[in-house]
Amino acid sequence: MPLAMNRDVFITCAVTGSGDTAGKSPHVPRSPKEIAESAIDAAKAGAAVVHCHVRDPETGAPSRRNDLYREVTERIRDSEVDVVLNLTAGMGGDMIFGNTEQPLPLNPVGTDMAGATERVSHVAECLPEICTLDCGTMNFSLGDYVMTNTPSMLRAMGRMMTDLGVRPEIEAFDTGHLWFAKQLVEEGVIEDPVLIQLCMGVPWGAPDDLNTFMAMVNNVPSNWTFSAFSIGRNAMAYPAAAVLAGGNVRVGLEDNLYVAKGHLATNAQLVEKAVTIIESMGARIIGPAEVREKLKLTKRAPRG
Amino acid sequence: MPLAMNRDVFITCAVTGSGDTAGKSPHVPRSPKEIAESAIDAAKAGAAVVHCHVRDPETGAPSRRNDLYREVTERIRDSEVDVVLNLTAGMGGDMIFGNTEQPLPLNPVGTDMAGATERVSHVAECLPEICTLDCGTMNFSLGDYVMTNTPSMLRAMGRMMTDLGVRPEIEAFDTGHLWFAKQLVEEGVIEDPVLIQLCMGVPWGAPDDLNTFMAMVNNVPSNWTFSAFSIGRNAMAYPAAAVLAGGNVRVGLEDNLYVAKGHLATNAQLVEKAVTIIESMGARIIGPAEVREKLKLTKRAPRG
Amino acid sequence: MPLAMNRDVFITCAVTGSGDTAGKSPHVPRSPKEIAESAIDAAKAGAAVVHCHVRDPETGAPSRRNDLYREVTERIRDSEVDVVLNLTAGMGGDMIFGNTEQPLPLNPVGTDMAGATERVSHVAECLPEICTLDCGTMNFSLGDYVMTNTPSMLRAMGRMMTDLGVRPEIEAFDTGHLWFAKQLVEEGVIEDPVLIQLCMGVPWGAPDDLNTFMAMVNNVPSNWTFSAFSIGRNAMAYPAAAVLAGGNVRVGLEDNLYVAKGHLATNAQLVEKAVTIIESMGARIIGPAEVREKLKLTKRAPRG
Amino acid sequence: MPLAMNRDVFITCAVTGSGDTAGKSPHVPRSPKEIAESAIDAAKAGAAVVHCHVRDPETGAPSRRNDLYREVTERIRDSEVDVVLNLTAGMGGDMIFGNTEQPLPLNPVGTDMAGATERVSHVAECLPEICTLDCGTMNFSLGDYVMTNTPSMLRAMGRMMTDLGVRPEIEAFDTGHLWFAKQLVEEGVIEDPVLIQLCMGVPWGAPDDLNTFMAMVNNVPSNWTFSAFSIGRNAMAYPAAAVLAGGNVRVGLEDNLYVAKGHLATNAQLVEKAVTIIESMGARIIGPAEVREKLKLTKRAPRG
Ligand SMILES: [Zn+2]
Ligand SMILES: [Zn+2]
Ligand SMILES: [Zn+2]
Ligand SMILES: [Zn+2]
Repeated sequence: MPLAMNRDVFITCAVTGSGDTAGKSPHVPRSPKEIAESAIDAAKAGAAVVHCHVRDPETGAPSRRNDLYREVTERIRDSEVDVVLNLTAGMGGDMIFGNTEQPLPLNPVGTDMAGATERVSHVAECLPEICTLDCGTMNFSLGDYVMTNTPSMLRAMGRMMTDLGVRPEIEAFDTGHLWFAKQLVEEGVIEDPVLIQLCMGVPWGAPDDLNTFMAMVNNVPSNWTFSAFSIGRNAMAYPAAAVLAGGNVRVGLEDNLYVAKGHLATNAQLVEKAVTIIESMGARIIGPAEVREKLKLTKRAPRG
Repeated sequence: MPLAMNRDVFITCAVTGSGDTAGKSPHVPRSPKEIAESAIDAAKAGAAVVHCHVRDPETGAPSRRNDLYREVTERIRDSEVDVVLNLTAGMGGDMIFGNTEQPLPLNPVGTDMAGATERVSHVAECLPEICTLDCGTMNFSLGDYVMTNTPSMLRAMGRMMTDLGVRPEIEAFDTGHLWFAKQLVEEGVIEDPVLIQLCMGVPWGAPDDLNTFMAMVNNVPSNWTFSAFSIGRNAMAYPAAAVLAGGNVRVGLEDNLYVAKGHLATNAQLVEKAVTIIESMGARIIGPAEVREKLKLTKRAPRG
Repeated sequence: MPLAMNRDVFITCAVTGSGDTAGKSPHVPRSPKEIAESAIDAAKAGAAVVHCHVRDPETGAPSRRNDLYREVTERIRDSEVDVVLNLTAGMGGDMIFGNTEQPLPLNPVGTDMAGATERVSHVAECLPEICTLDCGTMNFSLGDYVMTNTPSMLRAMGRMMTDLGVRPEIEAFDTGHLWFAKQLVEEGVIEDPVLIQLCMGVPWGAPDDLNTFMAMVNNVPSNWTFSAFSIGRNAMAYPAAAVLAGGNVRVGLEDNLYVAKGHLATNAQLVEKAVTIIESMGARIIGPAEVREKLKLTKRAPRG
Repeated sequence: MPLAMNRDVFITCAVTGSGDTAGKSPHVPRSPKEIAESAIDAAKAGAAVVHCHVRDPETGAPSRRNDLYREVTERIRDSEVDVVLNLTAGMGGDMIFGNTEQPLPLNPVGTDMAGATERVSHVAECLPEICTLDCGTMNFSLGDYVMTNTPSMLRAMGRMMTDLGVRPEIEAFDTGHLWFAKQLVEEGVIEDPVLIQLCMGVPWGAPDDLNTFMAMVNNVPSNWTFSAFSIGRNAMAYPAAAVLAGGNVRVGLEDNLYVAKGHLATNAQLVEKAVTIIESMGARIIGPAEVREKLKLTKRAPRG
């Protein structure tokens, strides 16, 4: 009943994401080399985990090419810096409709609906220690994009991840996604120890006010490990919220481009700021070895 | 700070819905005549508002044929019983995918994606006092069905409803839907007085635990009118939750088939039970006239 | 995460209390005979537990005379109606100050500060199955009365109750009282199974809004049994709140004199109304035998 | 509904308090000179407000001698550093009982029950911009001490403060204290703009978990200004909680002696750490001038 803050906190750096941000900041990494380097710098600054998407090296557009994931993975593994690698498996569930008078056929520009095996293929190939599983379908962010992950798709992908020995990081963007995550655990699709990311403040998922956040936190089973973040303007306020609520912290250019009003950040700078906040609150930053122990991860070389 | 319970409560009866329930209870009305009669009985039992879907009179399958809505509307309007008519506009946003290895093309069986004008056409024709607006996209209930309502679709439909002078009842199935509803109000798409239904406990939307429910209630602006329900096992517990939290009540066969364990209900019986609970708690049931005044509704004859 | 409502609910009837209510309703029982009869009627109406104070039979003023407790106990035990007896141990911690310019000496009228042994003496003599333990000090209700129960007093009284084999019902009037109750359990002063009453809406303790109530409920350990009530205007709304939150129900003339606006109630009528609400919500009322099993109570004859 | 964090935060430094801490850290100031100097250093470090008690300069024991308050006030006012002065009015409501078998007579050692005029006399003499009003009675912290402030005493003291033109800072140690504060505002005893301090984690008041904290925050009227703190181990975690919830920050040696595990702090160091956290979260620290404008304070010289 005293404040159940987390006193041993790990930081995940979400290095680049799939957002339309590559043109908005020179610090958003595009090529596998840039992504790996930015991830390594974030690890040096205190991130125990790096969560990576890949992008087309030329255009900066989001991509799900396996060769790009492979290059990012190898570059990070070849570095001398130890860090837990977390690859997104969120791509390939993108839907854009025609228009409001004729929603179908789907708009081929922007729609990318892959099968489960294909969506997990880079995970099978790279065998990261963690990969994400976006636990629901919703209108996602501005524009008219639907992030699409049906129950059967989530069961299929989750089962594949579990069979590969890759720990899924469940991403819950609203209270119903957390509910379904519990269903997947109950069904045995996802095994202990369970890891969940509470993704707050993404339109039109759960808003990031503390009442909503606490409703979600109150529903996270006590034997799960959770982390949380919010995006944009509140991104650097949320590390404190996450720690106070007993969780871990995610920051990074996927979620927010600024380290202060008007000052574009690098991933390392965002991590440094999170470290400052967390340590000032009286908590300790834990590194990749402790995260592996907590989440029973196995560091692996690419399967090749 | 004392309990802000609602002491002047209106009941909405959700008469039949679009669920796969017509074969599960002899009381689920199918034909326009049955639907109208069940609605009228519910009104006699204390419902100020009747929320109606239509069904194929033969098969009981959900339908969005305008002639059926028209018949329901006229039958209710021709009766001597005064009640506020609320028609669903939730149909026509149904998506079912191929399979987990090949999500596209969409499964033609079960997929029904209509344009905004078409989805609102029965509202334009029948001019009910209220029609629903499902404020988001999500994996809806068991099976692999996606309830699809993108931001642009919601803006288009909401604008049409407002222009028709029909009060939208926003349906929020999770915290993010409520957030987007506030956005629609801010944009002027939906006008005061705002009416919202908090739809709890529908997999995979907001679970119906009190922490989640209160997080949503805390985010309903104080000048909005809200109602709430949960489905299935907790359906007859939720009228109390709604009233305690300051809201109004929805019950009916769309949400729940049983009046007690093992006893199939009629709509009137569900309304009667809600009346008993609400009055025992010390609140008063208000009728259609007071609801019209509160929500600035205009009782209208069909446009035809 | 679905609503964790309680589906097996016991009702406590708080038969008379110590409030200034004897003159406000002809139904508030005064003499041991009246109190026992009202308690028995409440049990017949569905209360599994009766919580009794005693009053001066002539004046109706609150009393802590052991002979009165004894008579109430014997009359209830001699009846053919089975019910769990719960005696207050809240008397004897009453402080009234001089005035705001000279708080001391304490006002002899209204001040009654007894020692622990004396405060528990009727419990030792009557050996009820349950007795209350008011877990804190606070400005209590209107007027300038301080309900006084210091930590050392609570440790002493709680230890005596435990040694007597009488189950303490912890009464928590604010969040800090619940916190101290957990401390008493941790210290071994109170043993499992733990029973707590959340006493809401008593000025100037915890207000009875749902946010405050849920904050308290969220802090009740999952292996404790809890009940809850509010007083006055919201008394008949709170049974629903208690059940929805997973708890049990208390009603009775100690908390509220009215069964509906302007209609003075008997205890049996208040219990009947609670039964109606609880059963309508889909829960079952459990009787004294099930309560004894749940709380490991032993029905005992007076020690005498 | 997005996070309603406070982006313009003022810090109060609680310089010394009345706790048994003078022997536990060399940094706890005792004499008026030490208190004033520590307050001024805290102001230089970023505190807009300094909240001061006084102590016996020889023994370090808490005191309420007016000459000591006067000296502290004058020393702070004579310095070149601008800061809002906040004097405690919490002394003089101390009760210690005899023992658990004989609570009365009160223990003269530790009992100090003064009248309203006397408790406010140093406020009348020093005319600080703010003084505290502890809004209730409770078992306070370890030991058997009762902090005593009855409703009539609070009405008398609050009225005096208002008449003196000194802004009361309501201190709420539990949810019921906040409720009574609203009552005082409703009665006109306390006038706008209202300032409240949510005092979390003091045994046996409100625990400092986020659910309880949010229940209190949800009950603070939107036109009030609030600040919050917790004591001891969570003291340096709470600035983040306060800001996230929309409030202001209090730190200082009254609440906590350590700047990090095992490192005794000065007031200035605690303030510096709070500044770091707050600014890292993206908020701005405001100074005494902005606080005065916000709370309509008037900087005054001693009346003498
Ligand atoms: Zn990502
Ligand atoms: Zn419907
Ligand atoms: Zn009692
Ligand atoms: Zn103080």
